[in-house]
Amino acid sequence: METLSIVKIGGNVIDDQDALKHFLYNLAALPGYKLLVHGGGKIATETAHKMGIPVQMHEGRRITCAETLKVVTMVYAGYVNKSITASLQAHGCNAIGLSGADMNIIKAEKRIVKEVDYGYAGDITGVNTDQLALLLKAGITPVCCAVTHDGNGQLLNTNADTIAASLAAALAGTWNTSLYYCFEKNGVLEDVDQAHSVIPQITPTYFEELKQKEIIADGMLPKLNNAFAALENGVKEVFIGSHQMIGSTEVINTKIALS
Amino acid sequence: METLSIVKIGGNVIDDQDALKHFLYNLAALPGYKLLVHGGGKIATETAHKMGIPVQMHEGRRITCAETLKVVTMVYAGYVNKSITASLQAHGCNAIGLSGADMNIIKAEKRIVKEVDYGYAGDITGVNTDQLALLLKAGITPVCCAVTHDGNGQLLNTNADTIAASLAAALAGTWNTSLYYCFEKNGVLEDVDQAHSVIPQITPTYFEELKQKEIIADGMLPKLNNAFAALENGVKEVFIGSHQMIGSTEVINTKIALS
Repeated sequence: METLSIVKIGGNVIDDQDALKHFLYNLAALPGYKLLVHGGGKIATETAHKMGIPVQMHEGRRITCAETLKVVTMVYAGYVNKSITASLQAHGCNAIGLSGADMNIIKAEKRIVKEVDYGYAGDITGVNTDQLALLLKAGITPVCCAVTHDGNGQLLNTNADTIAASLAAALAGTWNTSLYYCFEKNGVLEDVDQAHSVIPQITPTYFEELKQKEIIADGMLPKLNNAFAALENGVKEVFIGSHQMIGSTEVINTKIALS
Repeated sequence: METLSIVKIGGNVIDDQDALKHFLYNLAALPGYKLLVHGGGKIATETAHKMGIPVQMHEGRRITCAETLKVVTMVYAGYVNKSITASLQAHGCNAIGLSGADMNIIKAEKRIVKEVDYGYAGDITGVNTDQLALLLKAGITPVCCAVTHDGNGQLLNTNADTIAASLAAALAGTWNTSLYYCFEKNGVLEDVDQAHSVIPQITPTYFEELKQKEIIADGMLPKLNNAFAALENGVKEVFIGSHQMIGSTEVINTKIALS
């Protein structure tokens, strides 16, 4: 099987013009098949502020009212997605920007209201592997934003980490798939205040231990759950670290492994 | 050769939720290959107002400063494009939303400054027929917004009528291509104050006559120039009329013909 790299970049890379430029240059040069998933960074919040739309968060997740969904779609699927796509094209990488509605690649359902009503937030129900494979096999690099759809015309705001894990799992049957989570730290830290305390490898047993010792911070938990879910679905390897690990084998990071 | 319908909808359809719904339903049901080009309607202007960005127009064309380009990209390539794509998917039409940067389908150059500096406005320099054909032949309906790129990472605001004519001309070698310009009137009017004075057919000779008699209004001139350019490049037929002509052979419109 040929190799496929699925890379997710977080808001910190989107918000830093120099970091983004450096990252996209390296991504374009990365050999093999590749796919990028991106969040939106601070631009969505800034745009909502400018438009007088209140920003509501619950445990770090955005509560998406109809007006917020409009902003999210404008910023993630429009401005950020097309800016990244144009940059990749400038570096000779044949990118295509996609939401989940495009070619029906990611279907989701509106999150069921329990204690919190997240509004137009979507939980993934299906990935259209055939359509993604059509693009990848034609040498095209999909650039996926954090917007999906329900198949009935409704767009939905969807967690970018989960999108990356779901796409990696869906494509693992066709490609030898590696998943890279690029975020603001160099990896999963043993001590959140020590930038260099990167844990080199986390296995399920060690993950349980870290959780019991409360070393894994709240924000890291869903990322690690997504990572293990991807591995259990056939993804070869998952790395968590800074965007600088893309295109370099010398940058330290945390490898997530089943054993 | 198989048939391809290229349909351009103007702002009046985008701004009218009922009209847009009706139109997308009919477009999804249209047999044969198809491609949609859309403008942005009033939403770009409204969004710019909300964000405190001044809107500057010259002879009906938007002057695109860096901040305006951001809004245009957010609204055209983001909100409008993805809303249309999700609706078409809901009607069973496998749509994909695209800017010119996606798969490098439309390249443009920043308009040269003469009397007026239009800012980040782009004039089309090339259409990537192979990439569009790849999608069309896979049964996918491209939904193209009025944003292109220069190949060096710069997005550019580009006239949607010209995009439709350029795509039609580029694809006319592979498909039996018809071009439909849907706008706020029922066709080209002999008397602008009489909605029913639709001219059934305009040939180049008649076009010259209409121009001399000053029957063709300023706004209509570029549309007709685009229409004739498309025909001269092999497009089979061009129709100008309301969105209701899509999916109905009984709705009156103006046919543009070389003879």
